[in-house]
Amino acid sequence: MSLVLYTYWRSSAVYRVRIALNLKGLEYEVRPVHLVNDGGEHLKPAYRALSPQAQLPTLLDGDRVIRQSMAIMEYLDETRPTPPLMPAYAAGRARVRELMQAVAADIHPLGNLRVLKTIESEFGADAAAKEAWSRRWIARGFDGLEVLLAQGPAGRYSHGDTPTLADACLVPQFYNAVRWGVDLTPYPTIRRVAEACQALEAFQRAAPEAQPDAPR
Amino acid sequence: MSLVLYTYWRSSAVYRVRIALNLKGLEYEVRPVHLVNDGGEHLKPAYRALSPQAQLPTLLDGDRVIRQSMAIMEYLDETRPTPPLMPAYAAGRARVRELMQAVAADIHPLGNLRVLKTIESEFGADAAAKEAWSRRWIARGFDGLEVLLAQGPAGRYSHGDTPTLADACLVPQFYNAVRWGVDLTPYPTIRRVAEACQALEAFQRAAPEAQPDAPR
Repeated sequence: MSLVLYTYWRSSAVYRVRIALNLKGLEYEVRPVHLVNDGGEHLKPAYRALSPQAQLPTLLDGDRVIRQSMAIMEYLDETRPTPPLMPAYAAGRARVRELMQAVAADIHPLGNLRVLKTIESEFGADAAAKEAWSRRWIARGFDGLEVLLAQGPAGRYSHGDTPTLADACLVPQFYNAVRWGVDLTPYPTIRRVAEACQALEAFQRAAPEAQPDAPR
Repeated sequence: MSLVLYTYWRSSAVYRVRIALNLKGLEYEVRPVHLVNDGGEHLKPAYRALSPQAQLPTLLDGDRVIRQSMAIMEYLDETRPTPPLMPAYAAGRARVRELMQAVAADIHPLGNLRVLKTIESEFGADAAAKEAWSRRWIARGFDGLEVLLAQGPAGRYSHGDTPTLADACLVPQFYNAVRWGVDLTPYPTIRRVAEACQALEAFQRAAPEAQPDAPR
């Protein structure tokens, strides 16, 4: 069954799914949706017909439409089980999902473009205030995530010695942390894991700058 | 194995887990953690030793510590499979997870207490501005969620005729929408589903006002 991914090069949520697809060795067709040009292509009726939330990513698996990065990644792991990106036991899956949510629910939503636009329009936040806002929530989130990662089963990646969906969430957030200039000194475990991931081709090919719709 | 839930009566994330526990018919011990009194009991070392993110809920299952509401609910469904709270097929699970994330990642994080405190401290938002902020993100999120629910398989609840984890996420967010005075006229499907859920004893017993730590 053919896979199609609606994508934007710098979207953190799409970046996660690209990592999962690459780790699985799956080919997919790329359909770029520009989040800024033309008032935001994701807001147009053509894309909203696929995504009522007007959000990326959307995955087509044949005629199935799957949205929300967390749902897409679990779906891929259930329908293409090799290599597995989730542990084989319930407590391990709970830990991986905890690490995923610590990024996807506790950090990423607060730095979203729509939130930055709103603190500008409602509170007059300028560029510096928006950057400080982004840094604040990443640092606050990394404070907890660093401890969670350091406490967990020792291993090269977030959960053991093979990559999991936790790594697919961590690396895009780490990329954003670097982009916004977050001081990463207090997060040695996050740095170690992110760097181990970024040495893998699956992560490199998923990076924003490697995408066909990235600016040259 | 005995279950212990660290809880606060009005926390939306804990409310979700209470619903899931009740739908499963599971008994659990309640350990209240007050989010406001004494500067926030969740921020004290005793609770942080359990939850490095200093967030609710935390579930103890014997000596296992499970955090993050989404991870806890999936863990309960995997370890106590009857009655199931997730569909038996991958595409159905993807849809339920999409509905869960549409609340847990796209609405709830923006109305969190720590975010409201920050728009006050950083931008001088007063009580009215904080309420408008909360209403804005709930309405923005419900705009998409209404379409997702209306498009889905017809049924009494979010996904079919038995409650799922999607309902456990929807109802606490609906409760917050009512609390903040969001105009619910544009969301007939959300209202219909939330009201069907609230007619069930499992949801009623999970409601904030029914908790032992709720103010009298």
